[in-house]
Amino acid sequence: MIEPIINASILKRAQENKLIEFYIINFRDFSTNKHKTVDDTPFGGGSGMVISVEPIYYALKSLTGNTRKILMSPQGKTFNQNKAKELLKEEHLVFVCGHYEGFDERVYEFVDEEISLGDFVMTGGEVAALAMIDAIVRMIPGVLGSQESYEKDSFFDNYLDYPQYTKPREFMGLKVPDVLLSGNHAEIEKWRKEMREKKTSEKRPDLLKK
Amino acid sequence: MIEPIINASILKRAQENKLIEFYIINFRDFSTNKHKTVDDTPFGGGSGMVISVEPIYYALKSLTGNTRKILMSPQGKTFNQNKAKELLKEEHLVFVCGHYEGFDERVYEFVDEEISLGDFVMTGGEVAALAMIDAIVRMIPGVLGSQESYEKDSFFDNYLDYPQYTKPREFMGLKVPDVLLSGNHAEIEKWRKEMREKKTSEKRPDLLKK
Repeated sequence: MIEPIINASILKRAQENKLIEFYIINFRDFSTNKHKTVDDTPFGGGSGMVISVEPIYYALKSLTGNTRKILMSPQGKTFNQNKAKELLKEEHLVFVCGHYEGFDERVYEFVDEEISLGDFVMTGGEVAALAMIDAIVRMIPGVLGSQESYEKDSFFDNYLDYPQYTKPREFMGLKVPDVLLSGNHAEIEKWRKEMREKKTSEKRPDLLKK
Repeated sequence: MIEPIINASILKRAQENKLIEFYIINFRDFSTNKHKTVDDTPFGGGSGMVISVEPIYYALKSLTGNTRKILMSPQGKTFNQNKAKELLKEEHLVFVCGHYEGFDERVYEFVDEEISLGDFVMTGGEVAALAMIDAIVRMIPGVLGSQESYEKDSFFDNYLDYPQYTKPREFMGLKVPDVLLSGNHAEIEKWRKEMREKKTSEKRPDLLKK
């Protein structure tokens, strides 16, 4: 599930340009039993299985270098743009992903933090980690082309982005605002700033409180 | 980027069991010009390109049936478990995903709602849509096996899940709580309920306010 995403689009380009490297580790390779299982039934009963602490511990122990170990978990702090900026500063990020099942609670002792993609539950941590990786990697200098920019993106400074328009000037009765066709750059900048504030206060007033 | 994920794990199984069908539509096929472009420079200037309204409009128009059209956008309402439950009731969901660039503002007129995966910016909507699809599909009856369950998951009733443990009973000095080894089911249930409340109030007190 992971390889097709990291080998496409900007993540592929970032690898080709030597801006990032990915390593996929299967913690099943660190199983401590001959059947190579990594889960077992829960103590105290209940449906489902639980991912054992041992293979995660040994998989993490196999890593060298200055790593920040993140457990993908709905119980963690919610990921956001500020967290992305914080993680961008790290040399090595490790995303520990479960699949189908929750972790033995003791796994939490061996990671630096738990992060959640949001207040919802997914089958595995893989797609959540890929979403976070995309959000982080696109801020590495050189990853986005010179024509692209992340500094005007939504959330970069707690505002949503301003409305964008391209051709045609009119479609199904919907027109491009006159100011954008005026050629008056000062007016355009003023309008865009006002629209960012208006849109944010209408759609996401909670962002402005931050 | 999309096919490898929908053809793996539970999404694959859900398709095989005829519980869901996926259709991938490339809105480039609905380009209105001979070069098959779907973007253009922004009116009013600025870096980057903007996805045109026309190909999105015609791609959406090509769909039949009772569809709920969702635009993946950082400006939308934040996705969560309640939104997943709401979308679960729909017959057809359409996820409109941009890539690299923002949409012409007029695209918003032709969708039912905008949804954001969270307060961060990604390069495209694809991985965000896949995260949402996973969260929704796993609640379709029959998708998770009989040994699995989503009703005790975190967020299902605004509580985080209780701590789970499996073998070994002790690892690196970390022990499984005695109550889980007691065989006393009433005590175990009581402990799990208390731990859900304790964990939620410690890690996510905001959930309890809901």
